[in-house]
Amino acid sequence: MTNKTKNSDNKHPYAHREKAYMKGVIYPDIRVGMQRVNLTPTVTIKGGERTERPNTPIYIYDTSGPYSDPAATIDLKKGLPRMREEWIKGRGDVEQLAEISSEYGRMRLNDRSLDHLRFGHIALPYRALPGKKITQMAYARAGIITPEMEYVAIRENMNCHEMGITSHITPEFVRQEIAEGRAVLPANINHPESEPMIIGRNFLVKINTNIGNSATTSSIDEEVDKAVWSCRWGGDTLMDLSTGENIHETREWIVRNCPVPVGTVPIYQALEKVDGRVEALTWDIYRDTLIEQCEQGVDYFTIHAGVRLKNIHLAEGRTCGIVSRGGSIMSRWCKVHNRESFLYEHFDEICEILSQYDVAVSLGDGLRPGSIADANDEAQFAELDTLGELVQRAWQKDVQAFIEGPGHVPLHKIKENMERQVSSCHGAPFYTLGPLVTDIAPGYDHITSAIGAAQIGWLGTAMLCYVTPKEHLALPNRDDVRTGVITYKLAAHAADLAKGHPGAQLRDDALSRARYEFRWRDQFHLALDPERAEEYYREGRHTDEEYCTMCGPNFCAMRLSRRLNEEPTNE
Amino acid sequence: MTNKTKNSDNKHPYAHREKAYMKGVIYPDIRVGMQRVNLTPTVTIKGGERTERPNTPIYIYDTSGPYSDPAATIDLKKGLPRMREEWIKGRGDVEQLAEISSEYGRMRLNDRSLDHLRFGHIALPYRALPGKKITQMAYARAGIITPEMEYVAIRENMNCHEMGITSHITPEFVRQEIAEGRAVLPANINHPESEPMIIGRNFLVKINTNIGNSATTSSIDEEVDKAVWSCRWGGDTLMDLSTGENIHETREWIVRNCPVPVGTVPIYQALEKVDGRVEALTWDIYRDTLIEQCEQGVDYFTIHAGVRLKNIHLAEGRTCGIVSRGGSIMSRWCKVHNRESFLYEHFDEICEILSQYDVAVSLGDGLRPGSIADANDEAQFAELDTLGELVQRAWQKDVQAFIEGPGHVPLHKIKENMERQVSSCHGAPFYTLGPLVTDIAPGYDHITSAIGAAQIGWLGTAMLCYVTPKEHLALPNRDDVRTGVITYKLAAHAADLAKGHPGAQLRDDALSRARYEFRWRDQFHLALDPERAEEYYREGRHTDEEYCTMCGPNFCAMRLSRRLNEEPTNE
Repeated sequence: MTNKTKNSDNKHPYAHREKAYMKGVIYPDIRVGMQRVNLTPTVTIKGGERTERPNTPIYIYDTSGPYSDPAATIDLKKGLPRMREEWIKGRGDVEQLAEISSEYGRMRLNDRSLDHLRFGHIALPYRALPGKKITQMAYARAGIITPEMEYVAIRENMNCHEMGITSHITPEFVRQEIAEGRAVLPANINHPESEPMIIGRNFLVKINTNIGNSATTSSIDEEVDKAVWSCRWGGDTLMDLSTGENIHETREWIVRNCPVPVGTVPIYQALEKVDGRVEALTWDIYRDTLIEQCEQGVDYFTIHAGVRLKNIHLAEGRTCGIVSRGGSIMSRWCKVHNRESFLYEHFDEICEILSQYDVAVSLGDGLRPGSIADANDEAQFAELDTLGELVQRAWQKDVQAFIEGPGHVPLHKIKENMERQVSSCHGAPFYTLGPLVTDIAPGYDHITSAIGAAQIGWLGTAMLCYVTPKEHLALPNRDDVRTGVITYKLAAHAADLAKGHPGAQLRDDALSRARYEFRWRDQFHLALDPERAEEYYREGRHTDEEYCTMCGPNFCAMRLSRRLNEEPTNE
Repeated sequence: MTNKTKNSDNKHPYAHREKAYMKGVIYPDIRVGMQRVNLTPTVTIKGGERTERPNTPIYIYDTSGPYSDPAATIDLKKGLPRMREEWIKGRGDVEQLAEISSEYGRMRLNDRSLDHLRFGHIALPYRALPGKKITQMAYARAGIITPEMEYVAIRENMNCHEMGITSHITPEFVRQEIAEGRAVLPANINHPESEPMIIGRNFLVKINTNIGNSATTSSIDEEVDKAVWSCRWGGDTLMDLSTGENIHETREWIVRNCPVPVGTVPIYQALEKVDGRVEALTWDIYRDTLIEQCEQGVDYFTIHAGVRLKNIHLAEGRTCGIVSRGGSIMSRWCKVHNRESFLYEHFDEICEILSQYDVAVSLGDGLRPGSIADANDEAQFAELDTLGELVQRAWQKDVQAFIEGPGHVPLHKIKENMERQVSSCHGAPFYTLGPLVTDIAPGYDHITSAIGAAQIGWLGTAMLCYVTPKEHLALPNRDDVRTGVITYKLAAHAADLAKGHPGAQLRDDALSRARYEFRWRDQFHLALDPERAEEYYREGRHTDEEYCTMCGPNFCAMRLSRRLNEEPTNE
């Protein structure tokens, strides 16, 4: 990792937004970061007299972590502050190991040829003390409200109380939702840099972004840079889907510098370890990979344990077969060996491992539909039933769990998808990729999928995996990531509005009032992507006169309307 | 109009698509243009033996008119062929006038200083013979299936019969839908260059694009160029919202060269005629403007006759007041004069004029909500009730009519909007702008609105007015128009799939099969925007090997999946 990171102007406060921290009540040392948008006053001129009415600041949910805090010192080589470490140690139920447990991890650590790639400050990992239950779900079930739970309760409310809005989201409500399995708070004890967040249908809809180098493209620098950008633009979690060389070292850099939970698909790395030969995969290799990643701090694993030998044939008549990488790998393994999936057979042992680090399981939908023609078919729903069985087995070990979903689904079949998931999977959170509502728009699949994502988010999906304009065509570059993240933020927000999340509409209302009063700068600062909004605006004009750029001065509807009502006028 | 039009490489056949014409049965001389995508064969190699299975061509709905016909000679200075003229004259119920009827039109025609701007081949206008009813609605009610009706029946089915799919859309069905007012076939007798299309909930969802110069930007050349691009990308109708100088001449150029119906908002030009002074607007000026535009060939007018004096106050407490230009103009006029709107008072006379040219009326929603906060409010629904009254008055004169809708509506309020429109407006087609489902994403409002558009299209909206990324910020350039059109095409198609339009899914299925079989070129050719899809793909790689660019060769799910099933393999 060199100091030189190109295009990485992402480690400074947001322009025109102020980092604000909310304190805890149960845990007064909690500091929940938000972005406060301070607005300009509304200026009224009547009969020559000018009056100013102040506008209340708007608090924005903030995923950028310390990067946007002017008081923070950012050093990628040292990693982010380990904010949660004292909370974790303070519970007295974990131990710091004398060395890392995975064979592969030790091998990489001792390989001097990797020294130039390696993160320089690797801490020894934590693990649950024997017999201790250390997951957020275990605490919740024991009636304990953790600092993490109070943190997310504060975070979800975005200071709406101060705006006169009451909220049902209390620390106790968070605890109940986690205890019931309806929500997941990903919080690996080895990722104390991560700021607590929650994934559940009764909370803000979250979005995940994917990064990851492939065989030939992009370096560690670039991946870390993309991770920071993703958080800055609003990604709630980050999946590292790297499949090339040095993914162990890349992951360490990412986790140490990532303020949001990190997810992975461990089978990808396991397959790298057997040189891509699916048939050579074994439980031992996979198990060691899980432990390796648990101890690095990955917060959730996608595990395709629902792809069962008996169900694979159901995908045979499909238009697009199996489009999940993990699903196709496991299908092939099962068929080559004519055996049940080792992920399914060892699922309890997997959960046992995950429970020692509080890693959540994201039950992958290996048989998800990859085309409109394959949506809601027997293969998909048969796997969903298996996932429903597995989620209960995870919960038996106090492992937090959620369920992955499609994919490609036409609008009229989305509701059935959501309802089947809730009933088959006992209320566990749903985490979908889109879904894309048509197949005919490659190059625009961030949009085809955002349409499905907004719809399924409204109906109860807790987290949406973003899709970029390059989906189906190429790996995304940084600008594609930006477009994908913002597109999914707006889809998630549309769902939050439709679900009536407390205070969600405050930002829309503030932006619309700014628009009506021609407070252009306030509009930009409240926008999901202030830079792009201002860039487009500047293209069209050079002054801030009181008319909208689209109508021109003679035909501006809002100006006519405001004059009609003798409403306030900004100079 | 000069020969030189920059960036206007839009007057040639589509690459890799073939112009195909379907013949009529009732009217054998009808030739309905479509795009046929010829696909490459599926190649299978088993045991060293190579077999090829041909793939059936896919027919695509085509809005590009003669521009994509290699046999057509395109000369913007002469205009498009007047395809419908013989049908119109053949009915024997119209007369060609000796001179144009509007004073303003004559004044512009006789102004020699405009000669260099003027279209060179202006034909004298047609008008109904006294006492004759010449609208498509009048014919439909009289039980007459016109060539226009058979044309749209063929067009809507996209040759799906040949693919084994039956369709309820027959010429008689089209006639019934028009007779009942559930569908509109915009077909001004003075725009015989326009290819018949239909707007109704039981047909393909259509999209409208807006163009128009503003006070200082863009020339006639550019506007015509944008119009042709809009049709080429897939716009079903085109609204010319020009507000600057020379809009009479610009409109002539556009109409003469436009293969899709053209709409306008006549109040904009009327206001130009009184130098932007709203209070100076009169019925006489407006009436002359209607006649001027009827005789130029505008196919539908947006008329904000639903903004009534008694309802204006309902918008006063809003977050964003009145955001419709026409609505704000008429509100101001009513308040300044403390009088009922002249559009409302003269509505029967308006319909009388429109009926003589078969111009449809698009009843504008002058009080549509301009923010999430204002959605579904009393002002909006009060106006909707008035529009329901007006649509019946239009139908009394056999004038085809549809209803404009919002705007800004959160997801959970869209259904109520649609249901109220159907019941208040007696089943007349709904034509909405988006709606945007959140206010917080300026710069991405093509997407926030496509989410609402797909939803409301599924629920029954017949036409969607596109929104570009520059909405709220600036006037769109050509690339913004492209993005807006494609975004709305995909939203409309998502709605068609959800509504189960006959054969709509054929294209999705063909594209998905091509994807699964790594027939990359077929994927591009079937895509809504082939150029962009291929451009993104080429960025990421340089060969057409059999793996998808996202996974890389070792992890390609579809390749694994296909090998698993021993499915066909493309070389």
